[in-house]
Amino acid sequence: MSHTLGQLAANVQGVVKGNPNLIIEKLGTLENATPQELSFLANPKYQSQLATTSAGAVLVKTEELAQLVENAIVVANPYLAFAQLSTLFVPRTQCWSGIHPSAVVSSTAQLASDVVVGPNVVIDDNVVIAEGSVIGAGCVLSRGVRLGKNTKLYPNVTLYHDVVLGDSCIIHSAAVIGADGFGFAPNEGCWEKIHQLGSVVLGDAVEVGASTTIDRGAIENTLIGNGVKIDNQVQIAHNVIIGDNTAIAASTAIAGSTKIGALCTISGGVCIAGHLTIIDHVHITGMSLISNSILESGSYSSGMGMEPTSKWRRTVARVRRIDDMAKQFLQLKQQVNKFLEKVDNK
Amino acid sequence: MSHTLGQLAANVQGVVKGNPNLIIEKLGTLENATPQELSFLANPKYQSQLATTSAGAVLVKTEELAQLVENAIVVANPYLAFAQLSTLFVPRTQCWSGIHPSAVVSSTAQLASDVVVGPNVVIDDNVVIAEGSVIGAGCVLSRGVRLGKNTKLYPNVTLYHDVVLGDSCIIHSAAVIGADGFGFAPNEGCWEKIHQLGSVVLGDAVEVGASTTIDRGAIENTLIGNGVKIDNQVQIAHNVIIGDNTAIAASTAIAGSTKIGALCTISGGVCIAGHLTIIDHVHITGMSLISNSILESGSYSSGMGMEPTSKWRRTVARVRRIDDMAKQFLQLKQQVNKFLEKVDNK
Amino acid sequence: MSHTLGQLAANVQGVVKGNPNLIIEKLGTLENATPQELSFLANPKYQSQLATTSAGAVLVKTEELAQLVENAIVVANPYLAFAQLSTLFVPRTQCWSGIHPSAVVSSTAQLASDVVVGPNVVIDDNVVIAEGSVIGAGCVLSRGVRLGKNTKLYPNVTLYHDVVLGDSCIIHSAAVIGADGFGFAPNEGCWEKIHQLGSVVLGDAVEVGASTTIDRGAIENTLIGNGVKIDNQVQIAHNVIIGDNTAIAASTAIAGSTKIGALCTISGGVCIAGHLTIIDHVHITGMSLISNSILESGSYSSGMGMEPTSKWRRTVARVRRIDDMAKQFLQLKQQVNKFLEKVDNK
Repeated sequence: MSHTLGQLAANVQGVVKGNPNLIIEKLGTLENATPQELSFLANPKYQSQLATTSAGAVLVKTEELAQLVENAIVVANPYLAFAQLSTLFVPRTQCWSGIHPSAVVSSTAQLASDVVVGPNVVIDDNVVIAEGSVIGAGCVLSRGVRLGKNTKLYPNVTLYHDVVLGDSCIIHSAAVIGADGFGFAPNEGCWEKIHQLGSVVLGDAVEVGASTTIDRGAIENTLIGNGVKIDNQVQIAHNVIIGDNTAIAASTAIAGSTKIGALCTISGGVCIAGHLTIIDHVHITGMSLISNSILESGSYSSGMGMEPTSKWRRTVARVRRIDDMAKQFLQLKQQVNKFLEKVDNK
Repeated sequence: MSHTLGQLAANVQGVVKGNPNLIIEKLGTLENATPQELSFLANPKYQSQLATTSAGAVLVKTEELAQLVENAIVVANPYLAFAQLSTLFVPRTQCWSGIHPSAVVSSTAQLASDVVVGPNVVIDDNVVIAEGSVIGAGCVLSRGVRLGKNTKLYPNVTLYHDVVLGDSCIIHSAAVIGADGFGFAPNEGCWEKIHQLGSVVLGDAVEVGASTTIDRGAIENTLIGNGVKIDNQVQIAHNVIIGDNTAIAASTAIAGSTKIGALCTISGGVCIAGHLTIIDHVHITGMSLISNSILESGSYSSGMGMEPTSKWRRTVARVRRIDDMAKQFLQLKQQVNKFLEKVDNK
Repeated sequence: MSHTLGQLAANVQGVVKGNPNLIIEKLGTLENATPQELSFLANPKYQSQLATTSAGAVLVKTEELAQLVENAIVVANPYLAFAQLSTLFVPRTQCWSGIHPSAVVSSTAQLASDVVVGPNVVIDDNVVIAEGSVIGAGCVLSRGVRLGKNTKLYPNVTLYHDVVLGDSCIIHSAAVIGADGFGFAPNEGCWEKIHQLGSVVLGDAVEVGASTTIDRGAIENTLIGNGVKIDNQVQIAHNVIIGDNTAIAASTAIAGSTKIGALCTISGGVCIAGHLTIIDHVHITGMSLISNSILESGSYSSGMGMEPTSKWRRTVARVRRIDDMAKQFLQLKQQVNKFLEKVDNK
């Protein structure tokens, strides 16, 4: 997996400063990279590390920064170039090719000839998998699942019946796509199950994190747009619709029938109530509660950062009495104003 | 899976208005249903959609509403009727019958003759499974697990040793029931594991969502009552007791030894501390923190909805200083009152 | 699994009061223990239960307390002694020995001779497993994974390539270790994946809860220290570093590159932002948001407990207007002070 600096530069339309024949074996951080490693400077506040890094070469933004190290690649966007080059250093991790003999594949399933199916995979009736896709060990693809091209399932993913994934998706382990939405009608003190008759459809280039759950729709489908990136432990309820290229960080939960626009960025630990509309280009900061629709793009928050517990307890005690304080304040204000008026009128 | 309108009405004790021989093939929303689909009007605010829907027929509450469409079923509770009818439209998704040859079933396990066991299932010693139950692919039922009648495990569920499930339960994929409770005794800067010797017992008609975890008790059992419905990504710690027909939405966490009553509804993203008592008929709104027992039924909250980030930051800065503001306010009030007293006394 | 009281006392350096030949078959709570069970009094507030317990014997702290029951073991720390004894009462749950014939084990994997591998396990190329380790059914150990001695994986755990676990670790079901960190570079309205080239290294005696996810590092490794205990449904992002013997309760999420010290205790439902430093001996209470580094040991909070919903709504409405109230208060204060000054000057 080694490349010359010149080859790497060519991959990202960069200009080499220094030795284009330098052999690069890995990517590294400015702090810890060795002379065989390529690092990058994306954030100007780390510029001082250029003086001390042992990295063999560094991706930088300008010719001036390149002068600070012996070898560099000058690119418009070092962070993006680093992302693009990272694909060249992924180790080979796949241990199987073709369909592993322990896999249980229905005779009615249609798999493109180059699909890789790991050990103990279960592929039910009428599943369709397009070329280039890879199914990790222990995955279960239920009846009627359809996968696009070059989609990768890591081990132990579960896809319920009729779930559809586009091309170039990546689904991490223990993710569950298509489980029943949480729908029950109250019936004399019990809950009558509303069978969930919709499915889940993912667009192309969707990434779904480990242990994330995306429920099937009640009647219509849950829809995840193209290029959506979802982190670990995220819960997406039935009939949610998520627009293209929205990114959702870990441990966020989105309740049923909420519609989220394109190019939103949702931080971790957020809860979004059901039946809301959030338009495009909305950013939500960590641990916020979204209980109303957001119809204007911008950044929204309701997370409150920690304080020492003893101080926080006093704060909470005051907040609990804020309604009382506000009333007393109003009263005092009126009292003062009345008095001052009287004085003025004298 | 098609039914006549008359057949469907008979299933829910409804009265047909229009053509009882109309063939219904699916359920649909008022907005998108086709002439082959049955829809429902549960919420009066969508009544205007009756004028425009293309649905073949609609479940409605009154004769008057039925007049607004060509075909209808009049029932006391359209939402409940819809739930009851939904079971008739569930597609056949099971691809196996009997015990799949790839399943590993202990010779000491006792399975009723009609139990369905999918591929790659593991059933350990002394497991007992009653009639009508279905075990999805890749599930692991550890030593001594007992399942009631007609209970369904979706693929890749893990049940630890001695876990007991009642009749008619549904357990979704990647759920884990019976893992160790989180119990450790501090010992000279380390943690000594408290082996978790209890188990988990689920009543009848319990539904457990995907990726939900219910821990085994430390000494006694964790207990989940009849008819309890638990959404995805919920964490239930050791020795929690949950009363009948309580419903718990996604991403909620309940700490150890807390006792929750019957018929409670707990929204998503809630955290409930340990060793609390919550009585029957309590409703908790989304993202609340429950740090005290609740001994009076009703609705409880502590989630605060989002604001634009810039406004929220000002709010937080003020909240952090609320103790100081309250003290200053008290001082001002005393100052004013003292002055006004003096004036009055003149 | 029965032991005499004398044998149990010897295990915990305790002194028997009463009958050392009493047969103890189980551990039990003071409230529900039978005469065949040993209970413990750890919390003085339950002392009154000594008078009524049916337990055969009780672990107590002092000779005086021992006098209140017929049989007792006197130890310095009854809770710790209880933890230590709990290991003697764990039932045998393992149903397999050696390598189950259904397991798929690469010819290049190196397993110590006594390693137990359950049914349907997948062990990829170059995996190394040291003596005494047990791999539960359905686990997947990807290429290059290394496990120390006496480490136990419960069923359906997924370890991605090159993940390293120390000795005596316990990993619960559906945990995923080594999935990709959530890293993407924005590129003209899309997200360019940053391939995650680091791995995850766990020290010795780490416990990882069910459905917990620990992501691999972007360039360097995610590091979990010795003796760290992690509950269920926890999310640990790429390049997080956690110091020895820190304990993390359920449903907590820690964002990327955050460094947490040793001997911290983090309660459930906490969200910790990325790129922070938290030093040793920090305690964080439930549902707090940590958005800044913590450089002084102690307890920190930002969770606010619930109130009846109607009262809470008034509180929230006031909090939203606190900035306005503070400004009005300042104005009133200035007005009053100015007036009082004027009066004083007369």
